[in-house]
Amino acid sequence: MFSVTVRDHMMIAHSLRGDVFGPAQQLHGATYVVDATFRAEAVDADGIVIDIGRATEQLHEVCGQLSYRNLDEDPSLAGQNTTTELLAKVVADRLVDRIVAGSLSESAHGVASIGVTLHESHVASAGYERSL
Amino acid sequence: MFSVTVRDHMMIAHSLRGDVFGPAQQLHGATYVVDATFRAEAVDADGIVIDIGRATEQLHEVCGQLSYRNLDEDPSLAGQNTTTELLAKVVADRLVDRIVAGSLSESAHGVASIGVTLHESHVASAGYERSL
Amino acid sequence: MFSVTVRDHMMIAHSLRGDVFGPAQQLHGATYVVDATFRAEAVDADGIVIDIGRATEQLHEVCGQLSYRNLDEDPSLAGQNTTTELLAKVVADRLVDRIVAGSLSESAHGVASIGVTLHESHVASAGYERSL
Amino acid sequence: MFSVTVRDHMMIAHSLRGDVFGPAQQLHGATYVVDATFRAEAVDADGIVIDIGRATEQLHEVCGQLSYRNLDEDPSLAGQNTTTELLAKVVADRLVDRIVAGSLSESAHGVASIGVTLHESHVASAGYERSL
Amino acid sequence: MFSVTVRDHMMIAHSLRGDVFGPAQQLHGATYVVDATFRAEAVDADGIVIDIGRATEQLHEVCGQLSYRNLDEDPSLAGQNTTTELLAKVVADRLVDRIVAGSLSESAHGVASIGVTLHESHVASAGYERSL
Amino acid sequence: MFSVTVRDHMMIAHSLRGDVFGPAQQLHGATYVVDATFRAEAVDADGIVIDIGRATEQLHEVCGQLSYRNLDEDPSLAGQNTTTELLAKVVADRLVDRIVAGSLSESAHGVASIGVTLHESHVASAGYERSL
Repeated sequence: MFSVTVRDHMMIAHSLRGDVFGPAQQLHGATYVVDATFRAEAVDADGIVIDIGRATEQLHEVCGQLSYRNLDEDPSLAGQNTTTELLAKVVADRLVDRIVAGSLSESAHGVASIGVTLHESHVASAGYERSL
Repeated sequence: MFSVTVRDHMMIAHSLRGDVFGPAQQLHGATYVVDATFRAEAVDADGIVIDIGRATEQLHEVCGQLSYRNLDEDPSLAGQNTTTELLAKVVADRLVDRIVAGSLSESAHGVASIGVTLHESHVASAGYERSL
Repeated sequence: MFSVTVRDHMMIAHSLRGDVFGPAQQLHGATYVVDATFRAEAVDADGIVIDIGRATEQLHEVCGQLSYRNLDEDPSLAGQNTTTELLAKVVADRLVDRIVAGSLSESAHGVASIGVTLHESHVASAGYERSL
Repeated sequence: MFSVTVRDHMMIAHSLRGDVFGPAQQLHGATYVVDATFRAEAVDADGIVIDIGRATEQLHEVCGQLSYRNLDEDPSLAGQNTTTELLAKVVADRLVDRIVAGSLSESAHGVASIGVTLHESHVASAGYERSL
Repeated sequence: MFSVTVRDHMMIAHSLRGDVFGPAQQLHGATYVVDATFRAEAVDADGIVIDIGRATEQLHEVCGQLSYRNLDEDPSLAGQNTTTELLAKVVADRLVDRIVAGSLSESAHGVASIGVTLHESHVASAGYERSL
Repeated sequence: MFSVTVRDHMMIAHSLRGDVFGPAQQLHGATYVVDATFRAEAVDADGIVIDIGRATEQLHEVCGQLSYRNLDEDPSLAGQNTTTELLAKVVADRLVDRIVAGSLSESAHGVASIGVTLHESHVASAGYERSL
């Protein structure tokens, strides 16, 4: 199994609903350093899983849709708690949508699964892994 | 598959038995930077795998049981070589015990597996992964 | 010159005033991973610049005063732009106040200067350095 | 499942063939920080997956075969694009050859799979995972 | 003293002249992860040392001039050994030229010194620090 | 001002004398990831501050003198508390001795100062800086 991982980040404000979140129920924020991993059984004729430049570009656009925002007011996230786990899923799902839509290179059609990890600090992260 | 990872550390002395360990047969020590990853197929109603605050707290207690000690004299480890691999297993098993005992949040009951990695330097680490 | 550095973090929401900030004029947020460095010409009789446990504790309290908040509404920061540079100064100044007030160990009286760095992502940070 | 990871690096020149590589079609270079992970279901009688000293030594030799070279002129890589993905496979395959040849410790015969990750910068990496 | 640091990277091929370089006399390459630090005694009216977005942009352009190249054939570096130390100086000098030319924000005129560090691996880096 | 930094590590056991150290008065241990920085006003005719290979080698030997040992029983450290601060000084002083003795390259005679940082965990480090 081959893999390629690219990194970007986003800076957001939000609040979380539920007693379990304690002080994080207040409006606060986070920098998420985002790692997106693309996995494939084989590489294409060029010897790659995915065009790393294009993957970087697409991840940057997905992060850009969420960054510099108050996620409590983002209509695309309405009604859901924007926990680190669920935001990792949002990023992964949007990357899959872009692969399906052909926004990544041809070679991306060989991608079997995507894993996204959001590092919210030097001591905590959350991730989501899914197949295509 | 969702995951949450929290990080802590412990500082221990120990020696290892076996020719394979060379100079590490002498009493020496290590800082282990410990990453504990909790994996679950789904998040709970709050949108989390596990209460990250509670997970951090429990990992801190488990590290605290081992830290600032000479592990050669720790009765709970008597008779076993405290290699990085086996210490990763000790930490993982103790975290599982705490989940089973209910010391973590309700949501922790959805945890399917735990992975623990002990970084012993900037160039070496060992890990242990188990299901619940 | 000796030094000791301890690390903690805080998660905040804020907005910045000024055209130069572009999209960061909107309410967004950040995790700041905070490094506080204490410098002294000599160590004390115990061989330390500062009690590392106490320094960690005091930095944690200072970060706690700012974390899980919308800094736009923090009265202690009223009227100032909470740029990374200025927040580094806030943290440094508050640590100095605590040293002066005796909240750190005796040895802290030998501290000649403090440097604080706030890492806002894997690609950007800002810092402030001052003498006591 | 247990694992041990060791890290080394190599510094190489190369060029890549294919329009997808854009400016990387020109002769350029990279530092690859290499993580090699050895996985085993059980540890041996000494409590280890693999002799970490010997694993470090063998990885250092494998990196040494590729480092300080123009890979475009390395006969052992003739005819293949030296993408990060494929170089990860080269390193993994050479480590497996060494395990099979007995260059690692006895315990290495319990190794079930090897994963190699090449970090080409602070924002990109590629990996290859295979069983023995 | 305030500071702002931004990070980027470049991937180059080169060879070094001089017996001291051993195998690095052969054509090989490196990824340099580049940290550029801008220092100022005071922040401007907006509360910043420098526009972090503009600084990132300018550093990216400077790295882009050197990246994906064989530095042995770069006319702008003709006749000099492209050691990590001297490349750090090249990056710093080019950033200073851009500040002087007004390519950074107004606030950049308060910058007193620039430090550039090039990380060539996880175990080695070199830097250059100069005043404006 | 130019600089070169190399990294190595050591794994030691020790105990600390003094109430201020709390549980660290018990025999425990640490991995110190050691950064040694060599600073010079100018580079030599080869364009370097110091032969990075030789610097790495010498730092490795200095770390080797302390690693895999119980520092409480190291005669060369008798009578002193082996705090992180003081160990940073020991490493720096031993590197200076080696420069003076000519164990590093000719170019090392241009080194004006040395800084040593010992990272004892992901959240704490101490350092010592001295001129030659």
